[in-house]
Amino acid sequence: MRIDRERSAERIERDVATLSAADYTLSSEAIRRYAYTEPYRRTLDWFASELEALGFTVTHDPVGTLVARNRPPGEPAFGVGSHCDSNRNGGRYDGTMGVVTALEVCRLADEHDLGLPLQLVSFLEEEGSGFGQMLLGSRIMLRRVTEEDLRERFRAVDDGRSFWEHAEAAGYEPARWWESIHVLDGLTGWIEMHIEQARVLQDTGKRIGVVNAIAGYVHADVRVHGRGDHAGATPMGLRLDPTTVLAETVLELERLATEAGGGTVGTVGEIELDPSLINAVAAEARFSLDVRGPDDERFQRVARETGAFAERSAQKRGMTATCAERQTLPATPLDPRVVSALESAAAETGEPWTTIHSGAAHDTMCVAERVPSAMVFVPCKDGISHHPAEEASPGDAALAAEVILGAISALA
Amino acid sequence: MRIDRERSAERIERDVATLSAADYTLSSEAIRRYAYTEPYRRTLDWFASELEALGFTVTHDPVGTLVARNRPPGEPAFGVGSHCDSNRNGGRYDGTMGVVTALEVCRLADEHDLGLPLQLVSFLEEEGSGFGQMLLGSRIMLRRVTEEDLRERFRAVDDGRSFWEHAEAAGYEPARWWESIHVLDGLTGWIEMHIEQARVLQDTGKRIGVVNAIAGYVHADVRVHGRGDHAGATPMGLRLDPTTVLAETVLELERLATEAGGGTVGTVGEIELDPSLINAVAAEARFSLDVRGPDDERFQRVARETGAFAERSAQKRGMTATCAERQTLPATPLDPRVVSALESAAAETGEPWTTIHSGAAHDTMCVAERVPSAMVFVPCKDGISHHPAEEASPGDAALAAEVILGAISALA
Repeated sequence: MRIDRERSAERIERDVATLSAADYTLSSEAIRRYAYTEPYRRTLDWFASELEALGFTVTHDPVGTLVARNRPPGEPAFGVGSHCDSNRNGGRYDGTMGVVTALEVCRLADEHDLGLPLQLVSFLEEEGSGFGQMLLGSRIMLRRVTEEDLRERFRAVDDGRSFWEHAEAAGYEPARWWESIHVLDGLTGWIEMHIEQARVLQDTGKRIGVVNAIAGYVHADVRVHGRGDHAGATPMGLRLDPTTVLAETVLELERLATEAGGGTVGTVGEIELDPSLINAVAAEARFSLDVRGPDDERFQRVARETGAFAERSAQKRGMTATCAERQTLPATPLDPRVVSALESAAAETGEPWTTIHSGAAHDTMCVAERVPSAMVFVPCKDGISHHPAEEASPGDAALAAEVILGAISALA
Repeated sequence: MRIDRERSAERIERDVATLSAADYTLSSEAIRRYAYTEPYRRTLDWFASELEALGFTVTHDPVGTLVARNRPPGEPAFGVGSHCDSNRNGGRYDGTMGVVTALEVCRLADEHDLGLPLQLVSFLEEEGSGFGQMLLGSRIMLRRVTEEDLRERFRAVDDGRSFWEHAEAAGYEPARWWESIHVLDGLTGWIEMHIEQARVLQDTGKRIGVVNAIAGYVHADVRVHGRGDHAGATPMGLRLDPTTVLAETVLELERLATEAGGGTVGTVGEIELDPSLINAVAAEARFSLDVRGPDDERFQRVARETGAFAERSAQKRGMTATCAERQTLPATPLDPRVVSALESAAAETGEPWTTIHSGAAHDTMCVAERVPSAMVFVPCKDGISHHPAEEASPGDAALAAEVILGAISALA
């Protein structure tokens, strides 16, 4: 399978530029686009009209996820797509270029007369900018939310009204949300393209990453209970300073994650001292743990050992520490057959590529529960994402379209 | 010199209780008392009337520091006192029990017919609760402020009006602030009693601490410039995580301060990450350094080496760090003759005592610039201060009165 990469790159560049214009964003300084806003509706309409021009039938699930098929509902088809909402301070590529590339795959299948049964999906609210809930559309589809969540708990960041109210006001039927799962009926496979949002591809000089797993994570909080004291009047030997336990734990987490290998990573992203005063030994320190990886056993062990280390470090120093989990999500292994088809297609391009796992979460985590799935990453400049400075190459996206088309053809 | 300790303890207990009543605090939950408030004026009036009953002449300096003498102005006298303002969330003892004990010294000198020339001073705004400026009264007296500070920069926490306006509204003459220094004219020595605000005396079972130095300090901020990244998508080996430099520096500061000895202490009391998100590697970390000690050479070296260590740690990890000083104040060595007289008097009591330095700042730091000075500490429960739970023993304060009276008699 070989496409005219230059022509595809031009079309992808043009489409991304189209969807970066004033009509498609709430802000002139960033791409800001989320569910049930005018710019969002226009974006869906634009995709719908492009797909209809290819002979696809466009529908929406009960909450507004866009679904386009070139076969009747329920008949087997291969799924492609991503999301076209964006972070509030977003760039042009995150999500949107994935849907644009899926559209390009549909165009190419048509132009090459491949007769492939295809279904394009553009998920709702992956970024959570509208209601503060990440992967919302795909979680609704996979029934990973409750009706209570949709009716009451999930509320608009802008006006505090419920998701339910907003969905109804936009003309959808949230009362039928339970039926959203039928979007996946008949799907024989699923491939999502996305920018990497990190620097691995750039720094290793690859143009394509075939994603074989999406990392799971443990989110937790460690609280160290020390003793608040006067910073001047308290001798070193009489202190119960929780920042020392924090410090030892930060370094131990770094050591454990590095040693665990296999893509395991660990981060202390939030630190709070109480009180927080230059001239006081803090009484308490709280810090967050974010431990991730594609291998459940490894990253969960690192998280467990880091929490236990903090408790021991505190104890040795006469303090106490507790580690409380916020959330644990297991890793999502992707489908070996789809991954392997992508790897073969990537190898055939003659361009540098690698197999990689995703450290970030994607809608594919939900889809993979029911459909054999994989993802393709393309590099993004310096790993910058969720920012207007986000940059990625339409040429890489065209290459991804070739790889995806090749894999789907091989799997058909 | 032997006093009736029990009677003195009873009087000190009664006076402290008197000044903890509703008339003397702005809050029913804490002793909250600062310059130019009604509770503060009533406190000064109470001391004035007690001192006048002993035959002292009571005056105020141009900004409201209380000065009471049993000799005409300018004639030699020995100074005793402390401050009677309190922290906003203060307890009964910090400052106030020092002035009460100074009053008790005056009473005892009278009762024992010692004929000692004495001057009691109650400093204004030691805590900085009114205008956010610590040691304000004694800094004004020693001309460690500017007229611009008093007229413009120092503003009331409550209403934003200037110190100058408030002082005038209270009936004082801030325009004559330059003359405040004459309060020290003729003073042959100065002894301030204060609660320790730490746990050294309690934990070592001493009732009296003879203070031979007040620690100086370096206040500084370290900024570590890393690279903000996705916590999931960035491999350990590609990170520039500023929290690791923070962690190494916290532990190095602990090591350096402990190794330096001689009362050197070091604290990281403020930590800020930017961004501060569980799922992001921070781009930048800022943390404060508070390094103190009675020995300038040692604590300044620890501060310098800690800053340099942070820079090296950052550099080794591919980041940069900068250390910027906020303020450096040298240590205040106290007068050997006054210290020695206090040590002799303490030894004569037969009670456990020790020589100690003060980690906290006190008005005596200013007074000592012009007058041979020392301090006496008494234990405070668990080192708790600046809190309604503050607790100290009137019996210890009575013992301190005996020690102070003995030292002054010996020095006379």
